[in-house]
Amino acid sequence: LITDFCIAKTPAARAALIKRQLDALVEREATIQAFVCYDPKAVLQHDGPLASTLIGVKDVIATADYPTCYGMAEDVGPREDARCVACLRQLGATLLGKTVCTAFGYPLPGRTTNPHDATRTPGGSSSGSAAAVAAGFVSFAIGTQTAGSTIRPASYCGVVGFKPSYGLLSLEGVQPIAPTLDHLGIFATSPRDVWYLVSAMVMPHAELVTGRQPNRLLVLRLPPQLPVADDYAAHIEEASARLSGEGIKITTLDLPFPIDDFRHLQKELCYWEAARTILPPCRVRPVPALEALLARYRDSDLTNYAAARRRCQTYQVQFDTLVGGEYDAVLLPAATGVAPMISDTGDAVMSRFWTALHVPAISLPVFCNDHGLPLGLQLLGRLGMDRSLIETSQWIFERLRNQGLSVSGTTR
Amino acid sequence: LITDFCIAKTPAARAALIKRQLDALVEREATIQAFVCYDPKAVLQHDGPLASTLIGVKDVIATADYPTCYGMAEDVGPREDARCVACLRQLGATLLGKTVCTAFGYPLPGRTTNPHDATRTPGGSSSGSAAAVAAGFVSFAIGTQTAGSTIRPASYCGVVGFKPSYGLLSLEGVQPIAPTLDHLGIFATSPRDVWYLVSAMVMPHAELVTGRQPNRLLVLRLPPQLPVADDYAAHIEEASARLSGEGIKITTLDLPFPIDDFRHLQKELCYWEAARTILPPCRVRPVPALEALLARYRDSDLTNYAAARRRCQTYQVQFDTLVGGEYDAVLLPAATGVAPMISDTGDAVMSRFWTALHVPAISLPVFCNDHGLPLGLQLLGRLGMDRSLIETSQWIFERLRNQGLSVSGTTR
Repeated sequence: LITDFCIAKTPAARAALIKRQLDALVEREATIQAFVCYDPKAVLQHDGPLASTLIGVKDVIATADYPTCYGMAEDVGPREDARCVACLRQLGATLLGKTVCTAFGYPLPGRTTNPHDATRTPGGSSSGSAAAVAAGFVSFAIGTQTAGSTIRPASYCGVVGFKPSYGLLSLEGVQPIAPTLDHLGIFATSPRDVWYLVSAMVMPHAELVTGRQPNRLLVLRLPPQLPVADDYAAHIEEASARLSGEGIKITTLDLPFPIDDFRHLQKELCYWEAARTILPPCRVRPVPALEALLARYRDSDLTNYAAARRRCQTYQVQFDTLVGGEYDAVLLPAATGVAPMISDTGDAVMSRFWTALHVPAISLPVFCNDHGLPLGLQLLGRLGMDRSLIETSQWIFERLRNQGLSVSGTTR
Repeated sequence: LITDFCIAKTPAARAALIKRQLDALVEREATIQAFVCYDPKAVLQHDGPLASTLIGVKDVIATADYPTCYGMAEDVGPREDARCVACLRQLGATLLGKTVCTAFGYPLPGRTTNPHDATRTPGGSSSGSAAAVAAGFVSFAIGTQTAGSTIRPASYCGVVGFKPSYGLLSLEGVQPIAPTLDHLGIFATSPRDVWYLVSAMVMPHAELVTGRQPNRLLVLRLPPQLPVADDYAAHIEEASARLSGEGIKITTLDLPFPIDDFRHLQKELCYWEAARTILPPCRVRPVPALEALLARYRDSDLTNYAAARRRCQTYQVQFDTLVGGEYDAVLLPAATGVAPMISDTGDAVMSRFWTALHVPAISLPVFCNDHGLPLGLQLLGRLGMDRSLIETSQWIFERLRNQGLSVSGTTR
């Protein structure tokens, strides 16, 4: 049973939470392997909004006290806290350790297993961050998202995953992949917890939001080319019906973007940029398969890339015009189904396009399949409307959870 | 007399160029003070497209061999090459030194003087980079631009300054100010040289472009609220007439964006982001005046910032729709006039808005006032059409220079 961090307000409650987390770590880390390295004796700070809070940090984010390996074997990162890490420490948080990630976000699985089923992937590339929160080892974990590396593992692991608006959280000290697509991501156990952390980093004070009932929601109907599991689609339909029963106006719309760009635009941008970001000269060479893929993009000129950038700008404005003023959030699956077997980190297609659009996205652990494996509900908001998206998400999260839709396996 | 780097092709010509550069350094650096530190005995490499090329690098960009002070007194940067520096070295370039900049881009002047008049500013924040190229110390200098820190000093110093499309050149290892606005900038003595360097960094091979005559150009007529010097406006009018005489169709249009956003949108974005990027926790505290300015933005919530981000996206698409297919470039002044006196790094108003729009911009040293002080002609292109903008710029540069419009003081 995970308790939301924000519920554990008193020093005693936080101490009890940490004890449960460290007990869980002793019991399950040998199987789950969420961490590259960790220190259960890490000194707890007792001041600040994140006092006595354990946090895991993805191993692409530089830290002064732990090595940084970018998902490779070697410690190659600078021994200096990334901006986000320095910020979390200043707020009183304690870094329990560095979480496993796939090398440079490339879908070669790391060693982490899914806390709901050790034969399945936790997703990637923020594998260990999602698993560490799902297993109850930490209250928060920091990940990143360039395609779907936060939303997808959150869905697979049955936790809340949040990708903020582009530019909202500093990437200083974080290994870049594609500068116009890279985002920090946050894993937690409720939207409210997510905003508590994000607002502490970005606002003058940590904000404890309450859920706010949306007026209108837009549900996206996806074309058959996108391989969404049947039961997943049925869950979203059922959830829409329930929300509609609460008096929320639900509009359903066919995906209003060309399917080819929905599937491939982000890849075109990502590979072109990554070829100029992570091929040598670089601190560390990428895995050979990735190097071979990127080498092709290293040789391509600006023309296609530039056109893709301009289409992306057009879609950004189209999305904002579609949602603006009308809808509190856009709803769609967070992945194509439950976590696949361990040899495959899964398909990022439900996130890629929105990552390129720079809009805030969140995955809520409110569905599961017949075997109790989690399926996330994804909500999208307008650029910069991160707080508003989270207020809507918190309301939906509480509502769908309370109606028995959320039984995401072993950790709840 | 500066010779364009691309003209000096043989080893002998490059050796002669370097000798002239080092002689100029001995003669004038005591007055100009372009460098924080430099090493005239820096080992020359003789392989690669940039073999035997001296380059200056702005002191916000990390280097393994020189200290990095971010315009402050202390060496606080990591002792590791930024991505762009590693890339330049791999291409055979030699770093002559680190160039002076204002602290965190804040317009507190550094010690560099304008090579055309030591009582005047070289502009900022890439002060030393612009001055080092103008004084003939180096063939290229790397700067940055978050508001107008490349285009304006290029205009004041009578050199070519280029701000590429957002995301084109890696900022890894460069001190961030505002993540959605930060760009690398390049100083050189011709558009062709600029593209030789940029393409060497971004493309499979260094490209030697030739000028290409544009079909249509859009000249922006600026509202009276923008304090452009009368002679500057007259120069642009005269240049337009000459280009029209060459058979280029010139369209003149009133600035098609709200003047308030043209002047202030970038500031709103910049200060909000900078408050989250350069206030503590940070390696180095900003200057007190900047810290006080940013503290106000640290306390403001997301609402206004988010709205500004969304307006910015709309303007990006508007600009692209306006220019797209119709015009080869947009013409306007690169600054409001010649370099002001040394106590003031000048007004970035001619660049701020376009920086936020992420489009490529270049300043060409083709005008000067009655006292021989340089005035730059700014050209803007479509996002990602950097090469095309430079081909147009090279043609205009050769044409206006050859027609006697370009006599930018002491260095030509």
